[in-house]
Amino acid sequence: MLSEIGEQPAALERMLAANAGKADRLAELATGVTHVVVAARGTSDNAARYAQYVWGARNRLAVGLTAPSLFGPLDAPPDLAGALVAGISQSGRSPDLVAVMTEASRQGRPTVAITNEPDSPLGKGADVVVELAAGPERAVAATKTYTTELAAVALCGLAFSGEPLGPLAGLPETVGAALDLGGDVAEAVGGLVESDRCVVVGRGFHMATAFEWALKLQELAQILAQPFSAADFRHGPMAVVERGFPVLAVATAGPTYDQMTSLVADLTRRGAHIVTVSDLEEAPGDVVIPIPRIEPWLSPIVAAPVVQMFARELTLARGLDPDSPRGLSKVTLTH
Amino acid sequence: MLSEIGEQPAALERMLAANAGKADRLAELATGVTHVVVAARGTSDNAARYAQYVWGARNRLAVGLTAPSLFGPLDAPPDLAGALVAGISQSGRSPDLVAVMTEASRQGRPTVAITNEPDSPLGKGADVVVELAAGPERAVAATKTYTTELAAVALCGLAFSGEPLGPLAGLPETVGAALDLGGDVAEAVGGLVESDRCVVVGRGFHMATAFEWALKLQELAQILAQPFSAADFRHGPMAVVERGFPVLAVATAGPTYDQMTSLVADLTRRGAHIVTVSDLEEAPGDVVIPIPRIEPWLSPIVAAPVVQMFARELTLARGLDPDSPRGLSKVTLTH
Repeated sequence: MLSEIGEQPAALERMLAANAGKADRLAELATGVTHVVVAARGTSDNAARYAQYVWGARNRLAVGLTAPSLFGPLDAPPDLAGALVAGISQSGRSPDLVAVMTEASRQGRPTVAITNEPDSPLGKGADVVVELAAGPERAVAATKTYTTELAAVALCGLAFSGEPLGPLAGLPETVGAALDLGGDVAEAVGGLVESDRCVVVGRGFHMATAFEWALKLQELAQILAQPFSAADFRHGPMAVVERGFPVLAVATAGPTYDQMTSLVADLTRRGAHIVTVSDLEEAPGDVVIPIPRIEPWLSPIVAAPVVQMFARELTLARGLDPDSPRGLSKVTLTH
Repeated sequence: MLSEIGEQPAALERMLAANAGKADRLAELATGVTHVVVAARGTSDNAARYAQYVWGARNRLAVGLTAPSLFGPLDAPPDLAGALVAGISQSGRSPDLVAVMTEASRQGRPTVAITNEPDSPLGKGADVVVELAAGPERAVAATKTYTTELAAVALCGLAFSGEPLGPLAGLPETVGAALDLGGDVAEAVGGLVESDRCVVVGRGFHMATAFEWALKLQELAQILAQPFSAADFRHGPMAVVERGFPVLAVATAGPTYDQMTSLVADLTRRGAHIVTVSDLEEAPGDVVIPIPRIEPWLSPIVAAPVVQMFARELTLARGLDPDSPRGLSKVTLTH
């Protein structure tokens, strides 16, 4: 896992090079589309969350994460008229996701697959494949494939609107800088070693970061880490917070910063122990993990390797092996 | 809370009577629509999950839960061409939800509000209001407004396709029977009194039940209860399960039953303590809470009062007061 986290700048470089030539086909695919339906599971579902915000905010597309069971066990797929259908999966093999894409093609709708395996059923059935080019990922916990999935979503966002891909060129370097700046998390994990539960809060683009941070902690550190939007957390779940309760927060510069700091202030009053990932020095929290500043919509790509390092370090500190998560295998096939 | 749980059959009766005459207007609203965008928070967000499955499976509509922050802090609302926009909110007052509906109207899109307060900003701005008619809800934890929201979603599902509302007529009685049959949960909560975490799993229509059961436990019992689809749970989070780990499952007759029992079997092998809500006598689990059998798509309405009773009983068993959840107020206004 550690070596694959370190490979991320190079993997991003390869992903950008492999797909730069597909911008025109992606633009064509999105022409005349009224909304987007995304199918994904696990880590890739968090890349789908990122797509909801990026394609929503930048491309003005209404993006919905589909319920795959409508296409599988319930056997009642919705009418996809007007939709572009996107499937996101490292392996490209989970039958429930392939079923969504197959139904989309049957209905004559345009499809895009974001996958590390272009020759998988997901890749083969799609009109356009955005290839992660991350190389083989051997660790059970996805790292470089998640970060390249995010970058692939960003690439699609630019391409759908016919914008140049220039804003992505600096990503490999900035992600490398993020590992240098925020990769030393030994101190930050200290407050969670004895915990078996925590919550992770974010908002806007960083909903993806909050969900992925939580998933990594569940998979590796055996902590029940539950992700929330800062707004949803106020609508009830905040009642779980007591003195010392660990809260992980993502609060970076941009339009959602004030809402995040206001939530952190409220949680501080309740005595929560707060670890914040931020690109602002003044960010609130008992511990602040710094990441480089970048345009807000790209910030989740830069935060990803840092929350991966956090999950790995905390797993080790809890005496567990991040390369052997309990009872998981690399590819999960669900119907 | 207890008296409001008991009022649910009567509340359902009122909701059905108050809205039966709106079927034609709802059918008109859904004509020519390619997809549905739903805005909701908290408990109402779980009714929105139910809408995703009901309107998906029965009306073949692609339903997406929106990211309200696109309409608020990010100020980048998507183009809603082709969409019917639905807002679900007990109070009808949360500014972020009102912002979604206002933008929908500005774009000339049809809107429906499902609310207990037809004179609220959400209700006033909508083309059609489906009124919950639940009467004032004084407990902080939503009970009768959640169950009537589910029934309102079911009513819309029938009305959108011009079907008669007959299948809903028996709901008040069946919900009353559910309280008689499954309302005595004192034994079922025993295995969770000392826990501060658990997971709740469901699939298909009962995703709503899983999420609402979890939310009630967070709000009232101060347990970090995390909901998952049975499929997503296999994609990583299952690693948190160790001997004695409490898992709550919803496994009722219908197309998702086999997937639920197969997951329960795997979790039993890992030594989890499993409480199952089911309408089948043979359902697996250390404790099975029975609910009446009904058509699978309506089962979440029947399960709702039982999981509410479970949350209340567990809260009392943990020495907490279900009528004074820590740090919550009845109406949460988020932007």
